Amino acid sequence: MQPVRIDGVGLTPLGVHPNRTGRELFAEAADRAFQDADVPRDDVDFLCLGNFVGDVAEQQGHQGPLMADAAGVSVPATRFENACASGGFAIRGAVQAIQNDNADVVLVGGVEKLTNLGTGGSTEALAMAADDLFESRVGLTFPGAYALLARAYFEEHGGSREDLAAISVKNHANAVDNEYAQFRHEVSVDDVLDAPTIADPLGLYDACPVTDGAAAAILVSQEYSETHGVDAPVAVTGSGQGGDTLALQDRDKLTRTPAAEWAAERAYDEADITPTDVDIAEVHDCFTIAEVLAIEALGFYEPGTGISAAANGETTVDGRLPVNLSGGLKAKGHPVGATGVAQLVELTRLLRGDHPKSDDVSDARVAVAHNAGGTVASAVVHVVEVDT
Amino acid sequence: MQPVRIDGVGLTPLGVHPNRTGRELFAEAADRAFQDADVPRDDVDFLCLGNFVGDVAEQQGHQGPLMADAAGVSVPATRFENACASGGFAIRGAVQAIQNDNADVVLVGGVEKLTNLGTGGSTEALAMAADDLFESRVGLTFPGAYALLARAYFEEHGGSREDLAAISVKNHANAVDNEYAQFRHEVSVDDVLDAPTIADPLGLYDACPVTDGAAAAILVSQEYSETHGVDAPVAVTGSGQGGDTLALQDRDKLTRTPAAEWAAERAYDEADITPTDVDIAEVHDCFTIAEVLAIEALGFYEPGTGISAAANGETTVDGRLPVNLSGGLKAKGHPVGATGVAQLVELTRLLRGDHPKSDDVSDARVAVAHNAGGTVASAVVHVVEVDT
Repeated sequence: MQPVRIDGVGLTPLGVHPNRTGRELFAEAADRAFQDADVPRDDVDFLCLGNFVGDVAEQQGHQGPLMADAAGVSVPATRFENACASGGFAIRGAVQAIQNDNADVVLVGGVEKLTNLGTGGSTEALAMAADDLFESRVGLTFPGAYALLARAYFEEHGGSREDLAAISVKNHANAVDNEYAQFRHEVSVDDVLDAPTIADPLGLYDACPVTDGAAAAILVSQEYSETHGVDAPVAVTGSGQGGDTLALQDRDKLTRTPAAEWAAERAYDEADITPTDVDIAEVHDCFTIAEVLAIEALGFYEPGTGISAAANGETTVDGRLPVNLSGGLKAKGHPVGATGVAQLVELTRLLRGDHPKSDDVSDARVAVAHNAGGTVASAVVHVVEVDT
Repeated sequence: MQPVRIDGVGLTPLGVHPNRTGRELFAEAADRAFQDADVPRDDVDFLCLGNFVGDVAEQQGHQGPLMADAAGVSVPATRFENACASGGFAIRGAVQAIQNDNADVVLVGGVEKLTNLGTGGSTEALAMAADDLFESRVGLTFPGAYALLARAYFEEHGGSREDLAAISVKNHANAVDNEYAQFRHEVSVDDVLDAPTIADPLGLYDACPVTDGAAAAILVSQEYSETHGVDAPVAVTGSGQGGDTLALQDRDKLTRTPAAEWAAERAYDEADITPTDVDIAEVHDCFTIAEVLAIEALGFYEPGTGISAAANGETTVDGRLPVNLSGGLKAKGHPVGATGVAQLVELTRLLRGDHPKSDDVSDARVAVAHNAGGTVASAVVHVVEVDT
């Protein structure tokens, strides 16, 4: 595909923002993106927005036009909702609009307010990403669902809580330098193993937190970039989406995520790369086991072999394929509808050289973002490259 | 643009379905669409879904993959949410996917469960399409918002409750033959004028009902249609979207809907038509005044002159430009996230010649669908043509 250039990116601090509305958060992220960009607000053609549960958290649907107002752009806006992958699907919508010549410049963003719902309320809201009749209503919330995936994985391939703990340790370590991260402190393997169990075999530190936040990026067409002399060395070069049954009970097996495999295959095809070309990745580690399934679905590891990647130091900052240098959902935070866009923000900065971790991966040219909804009933993968 | 062909359409009866879930309704609509189509389920590449408040009505987000399951297609799915225009935006997403060569066959659908929330609950849920902080929370629900638009229109251009009543009378008359319509009975001007006031100058019969229902259509690329010998004489030939501020207070004026004007202009450009080419239209008449604003935004009437179109018999079934031959939202019903797709279903049947009203408009070749969200903060317009 024709590359879609990333001209500016912005993120709010991720975390608990009791006194800020979703619109305030998005206004801040968009403002940072415009400050970072060469493109004026007047040149924006569309807003593509990811949001998951604004109806529940802020009694606010129809957030497309609301967030266009908040961002100071008078443009048509569309909200994309695919649970925790909403932000990634908003990016895909923006990329499609540019590919279709419907737009030269698209503001893509994501926003979520969740912490105001409290622990129980946010767990209930997040459970709306599962099948209400056959999962949520009978008590299966996401910690339980991912615990099932971890148990199935252990049974089929082996692996241990220590292997999973190494993922949490890695992602916490990566977040220490990230000024936007929710948790900027390290944890040890023992900390993870000693944390309260939330759904056996997963403990508290195997799970990402509940997060408020917003992210934004300004995407421009190759042609606009050339005619306007835009300095945007990083581009989206491939996009793919995949799907699966919503309910786990309808799956053939629980140890693979075919939706993500499908999405990755298409994204790689568009970008004309293979998994071995990838230098760094941001993946959807809502739980530690999810990172294992992600790096296998992305083709970095054969099924059953990703479990020890972090423990072996292969996906750490100095490993052969650093994963979640941002801190991932685990430590950077998971502002649901914004998460996919936040991944794009992090990768753009990493590849441009203005991220705290850029110096550690100064040779990186090809990156992948993997964003998943529910128990990977929806998945979207983007390839992001330095393309000067 | 390259036409996007409509190979099959399906609708559930619209109305009150206390004992049926959203997924059951969508399964029925999709099944009818596949029965109507030449395309097998296995050839579908994507599902684009419109839904507004599933989170609130059925504690169910992430309806894309759920509705793919319900429809019996194993494909990636995306939910589009732009309030009452969600269905129209799902169509636009499907059209874009086909235009981009990302898909040959897309199932597009919409679904909404609302009546289980009761009158108060559904009004509250619908109010999430407005600005929570500056409209809904201070008491402005949609009957009040559209009453403000009617008052502003009357003040600027004149017009009367009788003029609006003629729209309700027309749309009720059109729905009598429609086997899917929620209200299949006629009303008189006196019935409308004597109905309880809901927000002066609007009475009960100026407002559309609360509706459960689902709609589906199968869109195929021109190339697929040719290589597979698909019999699909009706096609989408133009698509446009527009946006405006979410809150009424931020608008320059209340008597025009620039989002719909913008959407129409782009859709007409793509289809290479002008308003005078249009033979029939389905427009978003959530309230009678909304139909007036719609036919003006679509360029059928100069601003300030659309108010008397129905009263003068110009938009009735035997008028020069029949509007809402289905019965419109007013009498056919308004299954929010499905409404835009239901418009496409009606127009396809009208143009193909298998709609109860087809014989009345046997010369019709060019149709327009106009779907609006909130107080037209979002708008999407499609041109649909017989294109053999």
